[in-house]
Amino acid sequence: MSEKPVLRIGLIGSGFMGKAHVFGFATAEKVFDLPFRLELHTLADVSTEVAQKAARAFGFARATDNWRAMVADPDIDLVDITAPNALHREMALAAIAAGKHVYCEKPLAPTHAEATEMAGAAAAAGVVTQVGFNYLCNPMLHLARDMIAAGELGTITGYRGIHAEDYMIDPLSPFTFRHDPAGGGALGDIGSHALATAEFLLGPIARVMGDCVTVVGERPDGRGGLRRIEVDDISRAFLRFENGATGSIEASWMATGRKMQHDFEVYGSRGALLFTQERFNELHFYATADRAGLRGFRRIEAAPDHAPYGLFCVAPGHQIGFNDLKAIEVAGYMDAIAGRSAEPFGFAAGARIQRLIEAIKASSASAAWVATPAA
Amino acid sequence: MSEKPVLRIGLIGSGFMGKAHVFGFATAEKVFDLPFRLELHTLADVSTEVAQKAARAFGFARATDNWRAMVADPDIDLVDITAPNALHREMALAAIAAGKHVYCEKPLAPTHAEATEMAGAAAAAGVVTQVGFNYLCNPMLHLARDMIAAGELGTITGYRGIHAEDYMIDPLSPFTFRHDPAGGGALGDIGSHALATAEFLLGPIARVMGDCVTVVGERPDGRGGLRRIEVDDISRAFLRFENGATGSIEASWMATGRKMQHDFEVYGSRGALLFTQERFNELHFYATADRAGLRGFRRIEAAPDHAPYGLFCVAPGHQIGFNDLKAIEVAGYMDAIAGRSAEPFGFAAGARIQRLIEAIKASSASAAWVATPAA
Amino acid sequence: MSEKPVLRIGLIGSGFMGKAHVFGFATAEKVFDLPFRLELHTLADVSTEVAQKAARAFGFARATDNWRAMVADPDIDLVDITAPNALHREMALAAIAAGKHVYCEKPLAPTHAEATEMAGAAAAAGVVTQVGFNYLCNPMLHLARDMIAAGELGTITGYRGIHAEDYMIDPLSPFTFRHDPAGGGALGDIGSHALATAEFLLGPIARVMGDCVTVVGERPDGRGGLRRIEVDDISRAFLRFENGATGSIEASWMATGRKMQHDFEVYGSRGALLFTQERFNELHFYATADRAGLRGFRRIEAAPDHAPYGLFCVAPGHQIGFNDLKAIEVAGYMDAIAGRSAEPFGFAAGARIQRLIEAIKASSASAAWVATPAA
Amino acid sequence: MSEKPVLRIGLIGSGFMGKAHVFGFATAEKVFDLPFRLELHTLADVSTEVAQKAARAFGFARATDNWRAMVADPDIDLVDITAPNALHREMALAAIAAGKHVYCEKPLAPTHAEATEMAGAAAAAGVVTQVGFNYLCNPMLHLARDMIAAGELGTITGYRGIHAEDYMIDPLSPFTFRHDPAGGGALGDIGSHALATAEFLLGPIARVMGDCVTVVGERPDGRGGLRRIEVDDISRAFLRFENGATGSIEASWMATGRKMQHDFEVYGSRGALLFTQERFNELHFYATADRAGLRGFRRIEAAPDHAPYGLFCVAPGHQIGFNDLKAIEVAGYMDAIAGRSAEPFGFAAGARIQRLIEAIKASSASAAWVATPAA
Repeated sequence: MSEKPVLRIGLIGSGFMGKAHVFGFATAEKVFDLPFRLELHTLADVSTEVAQKAARAFGFARATDNWRAMVADPDIDLVDITAPNALHREMALAAIAAGKHVYCEKPLAPTHAEATEMAGAAAAAGVVTQVGFNYLCNPMLHLARDMIAAGELGTITGYRGIHAEDYMIDPLSPFTFRHDPAGGGALGDIGSHALATAEFLLGPIARVMGDCVTVVGERPDGRGGLRRIEVDDISRAFLRFENGATGSIEASWMATGRKMQHDFEVYGSRGALLFTQERFNELHFYATADRAGLRGFRRIEAAPDHAPYGLFCVAPGHQIGFNDLKAIEVAGYMDAIAGRSAEPFGFAAGARIQRLIEAIKASSASAAWVATPAA
Repeated sequence: MSEKPVLRIGLIGSGFMGKAHVFGFATAEKVFDLPFRLELHTLADVSTEVAQKAARAFGFARATDNWRAMVADPDIDLVDITAPNALHREMALAAIAAGKHVYCEKPLAPTHAEATEMAGAAAAAGVVTQVGFNYLCNPMLHLARDMIAAGELGTITGYRGIHAEDYMIDPLSPFTFRHDPAGGGALGDIGSHALATAEFLLGPIARVMGDCVTVVGERPDGRGGLRRIEVDDISRAFLRFENGATGSIEASWMATGRKMQHDFEVYGSRGALLFTQERFNELHFYATADRAGLRGFRRIEAAPDHAPYGLFCVAPGHQIGFNDLKAIEVAGYMDAIAGRSAEPFGFAAGARIQRLIEAIKASSASAAWVATPAA
Repeated sequence: MSEKPVLRIGLIGSGFMGKAHVFGFATAEKVFDLPFRLELHTLADVSTEVAQKAARAFGFARATDNWRAMVADPDIDLVDITAPNALHREMALAAIAAGKHVYCEKPLAPTHAEATEMAGAAAAAGVVTQVGFNYLCNPMLHLARDMIAAGELGTITGYRGIHAEDYMIDPLSPFTFRHDPAGGGALGDIGSHALATAEFLLGPIARVMGDCVTVVGERPDGRGGLRRIEVDDISRAFLRFENGATGSIEASWMATGRKMQHDFEVYGSRGALLFTQERFNELHFYATADRAGLRGFRRIEAAPDHAPYGLFCVAPGHQIGFNDLKAIEVAGYMDAIAGRSAEPFGFAAGARIQRLIEAIKASSASAAWVATPAA
Repeated sequence: MSEKPVLRIGLIGSGFMGKAHVFGFATAEKVFDLPFRLELHTLADVSTEVAQKAARAFGFARATDNWRAMVADPDIDLVDITAPNALHREMALAAIAAGKHVYCEKPLAPTHAEATEMAGAAAAAGVVTQVGFNYLCNPMLHLARDMIAAGELGTITGYRGIHAEDYMIDPLSPFTFRHDPAGGGALGDIGSHALATAEFLLGPIARVMGDCVTVVGERPDGRGGLRRIEVDDISRAFLRFENGATGSIEASWMATGRKMQHDFEVYGSRGALLFTQERFNELHFYATADRAGLRGFRRIEAAPDHAPYGLFCVAPGHQIGFNDLKAIEVAGYMDAIAGRSAEPFGFAAGARIQRLIEAIKASSASAAWVATPAA
């Protein structure tokens, strides 16, 4: 029996998402029969000291403060970018130029133009890319998509998507990169998930009407003063899908008490689905075909019927966790690198999300519908 | 001890809402210490036969096919209109002209202009009016409003209101008065409840951006042909409240599987409330003041703490029903007639709802924000 | 058209349950097409003053402090007993002796022997009786029973019933009639409901093994001292049903936070049902016949499919309340008096519950299974 | 900086639990700062071929069909037993004799006597042991235990624990080791979890009264015939805790529709807790100290406040999965081996569970309470 080929990973960044990616690699390798053996080759961070400490903690063999050198290293097959958002473009383009596959945390880039440039470069170079939209990796979302595609709900008429949390409710929490006018705001930070889920389930959004709201107008600048906030705390949008359905999404990072309200409701002529990430191992399904008097939303629990859940747990109801979603993301990406399947959510998909975000913002500013053609 | 004065009621219409009103009168009289003894005096309907049958079933002493005569009868104190919507204006104006108090089912009138005319006439005549927005009579909604007013949630930042049902999902269900271009549509039929609840909780809506959608373009006309549908099946709106909060409402009568999704979520700087009419004896409350690590949405069950629940049930958790909401509505109206309190939801309030509906429709047609000043 | 015959009611007691009965009479008469016109004839209470006040409030034409005279009054057709439990037997026997139908609040009597005596007297006299087990009047419980009887769940294998509230958690709340060694305790007070529901759904319980626990050993006697408590605060029992199923019930009036946890779970070879009185307009149903991968507990909401819900609300999801259950109870009883149907829950049924209670207590005392043959 | 010492693991068995343990080792090493570097040294299974295949899949360096040799290998520090239950004793005793730490899947042994022998041997040898009761590793269960210990609930009065699933509802599913009269049955298989949770939260159970029921009397023997089933399909028990609380547990593997109903409810004089493993990242808490009118069960979501959740996810509401519970189990065990903490759930704890199981079975057979002193 031949050994699996090795895929050598260079990670840039060792913060939370870097750690989450490492968890993802480790779990993916144990749970899935990946096409590669993953080697944690080099970790790059802002200083050698930081990088070495993280490399030890995360299990990378080498550490560097020079991400450019790492990206150029011919031993590296895949560059994984979990550095600050503002650096994604430069790093990704360098990695693509060096012929590496690139795995990049969301948002891919602050603007649609930059994201498109990155997607174009990746396509031209023939490398395989992945953006970290891990909620889409949930088996229950795949079940939902498959049910919709199979016509279980009939013609889709209405959609409501939400991603709401409460991590910005304190008006005294300071200005951060999340408030940067270039790419910041609740819509980009978490509304992007609501948009990704909407298109994942129903296909392309044709046009949007947005309403972006800044609730906290100034925040401490960390130097004793205040800084004006220009980005949205809450955003809402009306949606028209290409398939004719209408809907809405809402994003808020000021939804007091909400920790992970990534919800959707899909209504069709023959059925409906309800979902909340707060209980993401469940999907609720209503079928008009059920007998009269006995109809109701059924709480379907994640089970081995819903691949790849069964690779994690052999029995239903045991539940996968957030980090397992990341492992599924990694596995899908590895399959794409190996040519077994299409990119699950590559740079073009990431650019698409940026387009929708910008369209909603532009729509809000102009109080006009903005078209968002898919190609 | 003196006897209570008698209030003699003339009811127009004997359909479901007529019956619901009669249930409301009967229960209100048993449960509350009303300022009046209610006398079911005369019931008017389209024919003497129909009216007589309903009068017997409902307990009215007299029946007539002549609502005009009944309205003019000096023995009648209160005219209760549950006739088709298109007749509300004519009947109400006649009753007001005769100096009667008028209780009218929603919608008050198909247009804001007519509703305003009716409200003006009532004010000029000094009669006391009531429009049937019974969901507002829920003790848990009063609890929510009181909590918001008392600052339990801090500054309100976000609101989401929904009223969704599924009674129009069948595209073969025929054209009815609910599809009448003058006053029909999901927004007017049930979105009106979402609007009423929004203003009940947070005060006046300052402006709206609407999105009204017709899903089923034609319906059987009942004569073998098809009739074009011009009214909305689904409507959505962005909202700006005068208090600075932003929000949205959604109305749909095509939400498959939903029977009574009259929901709201209110987020403030110090807390949040969640509610669904599907479980309307509960209110969910999150307080940032709770201890760290032990915070969460609390499921508050309706109890004698929440007046007037205790008049219905002496113990918590027993639950009131939909018809009890109508009884509370009646009791509040009787108090207003007796001068004990202001009109809970008079014709001016009903006209206000029509104004918001028209603003949302106009906004949708023009793709522009429309101001909805409160006065 | 002939008028309905009149049924003249004499009520003994004007406390909460008296009021609830009056609500039930009023609502039943409005909602149902009863075989009788109900006349609130006379109200009896401990003093003329109390009785007169309650008669006015409740709408009775006459008041008396002499229940014996009222029971003997040939004008009275039905005696309704909501007086203290200790008086039920004497009052009911007197009413039966006078040939009256008797409606009695639960518990029918403190002991099985007395309850049996009462049931026997009623049967001998040919009068129609009713004991107030109103939770059984819920359309969702009838749906559950019908589904079980129709084999929707296959062979029943397991049952768990609970009735838990928290009204006795304060050890300083004083001794009351509920603590009376003769007939008091949580099992009799609310566990009786759990037992009634269990037999309503699955048929007779063949034997029991009980565990009755006193948590608060002494309570204030209301005269500055303490009084020893001998009755159960929490009771549990293992059950064997005649149909072969096994199960358990639990009763507690010390379940902190619980206001109305009247729950059951029924498991069968082909399906299962879950119910909680906390949300009593819902029944949750799991069917193994649903497609693999799409199975789950469905939340069935009360609807016109579930008679007599449709008499209260023409649309699904609107919900009936606790007092509506009492109206359904009244309607069923009236049908039985008119000979249209069997007694829904007559004195024999009430005696049966007392038998089960005594068996559980005896079993707990002896640590032995006790047989509870149905006849 | 010094390197961590290496802990070399020898795994016996490569079925589902073997895989789950390997997931646990991998995740634990990534998520926690373990005192050891874990080395997957040797995997033993029934044949060299099976062992080699699993070793490759799981990442073990060596494979063997001779577990005795592996256990004797001086390079091995820890023997991890996920072989069939019937072999646990022999393997564990051999490993202990060789001075190894032993990690053993539940049930530790079919009988209390054997389990006690194993615990005694481990204690005598001074090795550190662990039995796989992973539900106890949930941060929300630790929160519950800490709250109870801190008096948040006041004096505990009532407890109800359940572990119900439905994997044995098919009467045609054949006889397996789970039906073995020695150690089989629902009580041992999953009721053991309910017992472990009960004692984890409230401390030792002083005595039990059991009710063990066989529902399916015969099952296919896999050779065309039927085999009599002697073990319990459903078991129930009344409980007395040493702290004075009373309660019950129930175990069923025939609870149609239930996939992971590991639930508990704890009631105290000042508060209550509700939990279900179906949504195991939540704990519901009721406090009588909350303001009147605003009390209710709060849904606390797992968050970094609840260690070690924060090592898995930096933000609240993201949720850990079943396999993460195993990683927490591994981490706790490693700390115990390193002497940093006591054994989280060693062989003595495993033997305790067997004692409770046997006591319930004996009690059921004799219809008598059986004492279960803790030491």
